[in-house]
Amino acid sequence: MHTDHGVIETPIFMPVGTAGTVKGVHQHELANDIKAQIILGNTYHLFLRPGMHTMEAAGGLHQFIGWDKPMLTDSGGYQVYSLASSRKITEEGVKFQSHLDGSYHFFTPERAIQIQRIIGADIIMAFDECTPYPCDYRYAKKSLEITHQWLDRCLEEMKISAPKYGHNQALFPIVQGSVYKDLRIQSAEKIASCEALGNAIGGLSVGEPEDELYEMTDLVCGILPSEKPRYLMGVGTPANLLECIALGVDMFDCVMPSRNARHGLLFTWSGTLNIKNEKWANDFSPIEEGSELFADKVYSKAYLRHLIKAGEYLGVQVATLHNLNFYLELMQEARNQLLAGTFTSWKNKMIPILKQRR
Amino acid sequence: MHTDHGVIETPIFMPVGTAGTVKGVHQHELANDIKAQIILGNTYHLFLRPGMHTMEAAGGLHQFIGWDKPMLTDSGGYQVYSLASSRKITEEGVKFQSHLDGSYHFFTPERAIQIQRIIGADIIMAFDECTPYPCDYRYAKKSLEITHQWLDRCLEEMKISAPKYGHNQALFPIVQGSVYKDLRIQSAEKIASCEALGNAIGGLSVGEPEDELYEMTDLVCGILPSEKPRYLMGVGTPANLLECIALGVDMFDCVMPSRNARHGLLFTWSGTLNIKNEKWANDFSPIEEGSELFADKVYSKAYLRHLIKAGEYLGVQVATLHNLNFYLELMQEARNQLLAGTFTSWKNKMIPILKQRR
Repeated sequence: MHTDHGVIETPIFMPVGTAGTVKGVHQHELANDIKAQIILGNTYHLFLRPGMHTMEAAGGLHQFIGWDKPMLTDSGGYQVYSLASSRKITEEGVKFQSHLDGSYHFFTPERAIQIQRIIGADIIMAFDECTPYPCDYRYAKKSLEITHQWLDRCLEEMKISAPKYGHNQALFPIVQGSVYKDLRIQSAEKIASCEALGNAIGGLSVGEPEDELYEMTDLVCGILPSEKPRYLMGVGTPANLLECIALGVDMFDCVMPSRNARHGLLFTWSGTLNIKNEKWANDFSPIEEGSELFADKVYSKAYLRHLIKAGEYLGVQVATLHNLNFYLELMQEARNQLLAGTFTSWKNKMIPILKQRR
Repeated sequence: MHTDHGVIETPIFMPVGTAGTVKGVHQHELANDIKAQIILGNTYHLFLRPGMHTMEAAGGLHQFIGWDKPMLTDSGGYQVYSLASSRKITEEGVKFQSHLDGSYHFFTPERAIQIQRIIGADIIMAFDECTPYPCDYRYAKKSLEITHQWLDRCLEEMKISAPKYGHNQALFPIVQGSVYKDLRIQSAEKIASCEALGNAIGGLSVGEPEDELYEMTDLVCGILPSEKPRYLMGVGTPANLLECIALGVDMFDCVMPSRNARHGLLFTWSGTLNIKNEKWANDFSPIEEGSELFADKVYSKAYLRHLIKAGEYLGVQVATLHNLNFYLELMQEARNQLLAGTFTSWKNKMIPILKQRR
């Protein structure tokens, strides 16, 4: 995938940099140590803090945080639904109250695009409603209608507005439709018809059984054009990623590797482990054998356990670097296997290993 | 100053790595970015967590945390008095209750040395009582007697015990005596008579007026041998450091640069600033103009303000790197000025600048 901030080799995992920072990780560590090709920023968080005045004065998020590779922003919708103190959805848009200071704000599709123009992300997401799970059919159908209307307004706003900082911004529309096949088909067809540079699948990984995640992803990937990147939002575990790559997904984001890291839950090439367990107290072997990441080579399991147990910042830093590096290495290896034509057998061998609890 | 883990060029500031980590800073950043020559560990914290079983199994703190430069440990006394849930001092030692889990422990001078042997620090501190301020004369005198008795027991324990990991460990005795000249003189003479490789001044920077800090330091430095390093414990502001170097101090430690960093209070070559202030919201200039530290070059004041205001880990990381780097640069420049014979005029010019609030 090509952006004005560089080429992205897919499949790719995008570390989540909610408020303009991937928690606990320096920008040069993202670029040089874990080799992130693209990171994600959250419009809702950035809109509230530091706010659009500072963002525009800085020359956009790339400049503000010191990151010159590709960046993607969500539309703010998901956080409005999940984080805001209160919210009211109408056909016009969403009125909500900041979880930080209780102030009232109003997001419309147009406003979501304008804000993302100011943030300056290379990839902009359409403003949609991410339905919860479970969600009754009537609500899902009505919500999808609004999401599709909003998409048309996003596309129109993209047309009549221009990038602010001299680099192109691409809009990705988002397939919704909860776990209902007919709605998903209808939505995927609508999204495919937009002929966007890439397409996203939303409203999954919100609590539905794994079978439904795979079924909906498979269904939608069958309709979205295969020559354009497909981005499955908010997914998932290492096994989820491999299964969904098999179904045709190219891009992922998820807070799991970074959030779990903060709780001492590590993903490794031989399964998951809870570094807080007593069994690691005197294990002075590296966090990941054979890894090239400095954090994996220098620090031992016992030391990381100590740091996490003691609530030390460095524990969060090391565990986050480790988990994100693992996710990105997993994507790199998936790419190697895809190019070698050995992906399926590799995936089938890897998944039981990745699901092991050490 | 020579240690088996390398030479330390004085005057030096030692970043505080309480629980086996300088909060928010990777070991390679300490070594390569801020060029720390020696760091400090806290015996009380390390004794309670990870505990001496893990410490010995790791092969000492250097191995445990991945740090191959010099290291100094305090004796645990200060934290027993300031942090433990309860404590009872007798001539034998101090019984205390862990602030972590309420468990009871007993530190004696012998035990403090044994623990520091296990930690494996290059420089070991004598077990003393750091008197509070204010402290009445009778208490200070009685306390000093015990501190001196304890010192003799520490020296004896050093003689009859050996380093565990093949590198030498030096004991630094500590001058106490509160703010009473006769007690300070008596203590300094006792400490000088030990002919240790270095000597420390404790019991200052505990709330006394700055004049008394300088008066006591001056008095004691006049008695402690000038050819041995003098370590002033727990001091202080940049101006404090320069004034005390003028009085003959060679080594410092203090939580101030790292703790203040976590609250957004920055020390710079043109004074102190509170990065949370509104005035920095749209200041996209580097944190420190002309600095070679990556964190000072890449990140702007506005970005650091955002990170600190948002409670982000990266804010702590960047501010801590900045403040520690400033302290270490200040010590490097003090050394340059001392070698050039221009220290006093430079110090007198710098102090008003360092005290400015920006």
